[in-house]
Amino acid sequence: MTTLDDIARALGTTKSTVSKALNGAEDVSQTMRQAVLEKAVELGYSRRTRSKAQPRIAIFITNIEYRKPSDFGYDIVMGFRKAAEPEGYEVTLIPLDLALQQTVSYDTYMMEHSFCGGFFLGPTPLDPWLKEFETCKTPTVLYDNHISGNPNISHVGIDNTEGMKIAVSYMKSLGHEKIGYLSSELESYAYSQRHLAFTQAIESCGLSLDRALTGSACHVSDCLSQHLPRLLERGCTAILCSHDLLASSALVYCAELGLSVPRDVSILGFDDIPLCQHTVPPLSTIRQDRDLLGRSAFYAFTSQFNHVAISTLLLHPKLVVRESCAQIPAQT
Amino acid sequence: MTTLDDIARALGTTKSTVSKALNGAEDVSQTMRQAVLEKAVELGYSRRTRSKAQPRIAIFITNIEYRKPSDFGYDIVMGFRKAAEPEGYEVTLIPLDLALQQTVSYDTYMMEHSFCGGFFLGPTPLDPWLKEFETCKTPTVLYDNHISGNPNISHVGIDNTEGMKIAVSYMKSLGHEKIGYLSSELESYAYSQRHLAFTQAIESCGLSLDRALTGSACHVSDCLSQHLPRLLERGCTAILCSHDLLASSALVYCAELGLSVPRDVSILGFDDIPLCQHTVPPLSTIRQDRDLLGRSAFYAFTSQFNHVAISTLLLHPKLVVRESCAQIPAQT
Repeated sequence: MTTLDDIARALGTTKSTVSKALNGAEDVSQTMRQAVLEKAVELGYSRRTRSKAQPRIAIFITNIEYRKPSDFGYDIVMGFRKAAEPEGYEVTLIPLDLALQQTVSYDTYMMEHSFCGGFFLGPTPLDPWLKEFETCKTPTVLYDNHISGNPNISHVGIDNTEGMKIAVSYMKSLGHEKIGYLSSELESYAYSQRHLAFTQAIESCGLSLDRALTGSACHVSDCLSQHLPRLLERGCTAILCSHDLLASSALVYCAELGLSVPRDVSILGFDDIPLCQHTVPPLSTIRQDRDLLGRSAFYAFTSQFNHVAISTLLLHPKLVVRESCAQIPAQT
Repeated sequence: MTTLDDIARALGTTKSTVSKALNGAEDVSQTMRQAVLEKAVELGYSRRTRSKAQPRIAIFITNIEYRKPSDFGYDIVMGFRKAAEPEGYEVTLIPLDLALQQTVSYDTYMMEHSFCGGFFLGPTPLDPWLKEFETCKTPTVLYDNHISGNPNISHVGIDNTEGMKIAVSYMKSLGHEKIGYLSSELESYAYSQRHLAFTQAIESCGLSLDRALTGSACHVSDCLSQHLPRLLERGCTAILCSHDLLASSALVYCAELGLSVPRDVSILGFDDIPLCQHTVPPLSTIRQDRDLLGRSAFYAFTSQFNHVAISTLLLHPKLVVRESCAQIPAQT
């Protein structure tokens, strides 16, 4: 375990200066402070060794709304806090912007602000810190994002393979055999996983996979205009979507085409965002329990702090039946 | 929460009779006892509701040695006990034999013996209880086996995808480009995962996948005699194996062919079983930490007991470098 003395020795300064620098005292120069922070990161100094201070975890959020109970991220954050705060952790929410990431490295930022762990909701390959996750030393948990080969990184999410199997089995139980699949950009970790899971589920359910019945695009509207008409022309009676926002827009698109859901075509979402209850018709979907996801993320931290390096922690998804899927009419 | 009263009412008997039947009292007929156990299972009665008794978890073992510290299963069992016993759980080891599975259903057995959870090491598709895991009501954790769609089942293991990526990256860093892969039967969950992971790793590392450089068979000796000569003829300079026993036999096979490992060919195992330190040369491999696997299995139970339905919990693997892999000689 690296101590303040180790850092002082490496920099040829005193323990007192190191301590002051780490605690942001004003009588230490900015240059020395920066040097201390970087050396502390390099030597793997851990804030958790400071037993007097309350341990702090940061939740970094980008691309996910979380402020209102109806926002997707709200229950994840609340689930995390409900697990972490009774254990004595202070939880701080930080919007993850590009400027922050461009001015400081991730490990240095965490050291500077005395965070013993970072939980990330929503970063994309465009976020500079994502690259640093391959080698970072700070215990870090990612929601729906996977980094291989760094024991300090854990991934939490739902079991997309199981979710798609539940989805395809459900459609098959309603008599559907021509099942289409629409997805947002496949560069996203979660969407690429779900796309692969869809093809596996089609095969494991004994249906024949036809890649002409799948389509993806970066934006929801492009995805629908480029692919939905083709899927319908080719006789899809059911369409699965990579996420609920795409499915909810598919409902609107079908209505504009004069199609009735679920009479003419069944639509199934994925995620169970709060919106699903309010679409017309209410959207059937595969649920990820956001409260439990937040709690699981905290568990991944406590495991890391106890030297149990969790790579992946996946929760069971659930089918939520509302009104957007129906039995296929008997062939006449 | 189902109570003794609920069971008594459903059977038209008294709470006292139900209690006696569940506790194996001798003044209850075998027929009544059986009826009570089956109704208790059907109604989802949980032994955990009996607050006075010490909660009990069973570890069922088959196909894995565990009695001596040098056995593969020993550290998994010890890790589990080290996590469970301080929390007040009694842990019982039960060899899983066919006769037991044929005489009683899994849920009924667990109810009858007051087990609140079952941890399984080593069952295969030939074990009758495996089929029951799709619908069982007893909290159950499987090592290296995955059952989809039952919230009462969790799977713990290591991240095979990451392990194979580490393995292929390591071989590539040593200059190998023609990398072969040998595997035991692909019907096994773990081996099929690793086989898929190998093909993904070859592609993600920018090498070209050649299926003629892979081979599998049910038995180690068949796998080697059927495939190893072909891999060598086709110019493989490195061979990854699905597990250490296969790799250790490959070392022997190569020696018999007059080949020197790692000078003529590099061999890498997977698992880090205790044997690896004693092969000639000592086997480099991908390590799964068995103590942590056992601890993680107990965590999966505590999550299930707290209604957090974990589908999958994977640990980070680690590369263990011994002496069976070497830099490829510069091409002349």
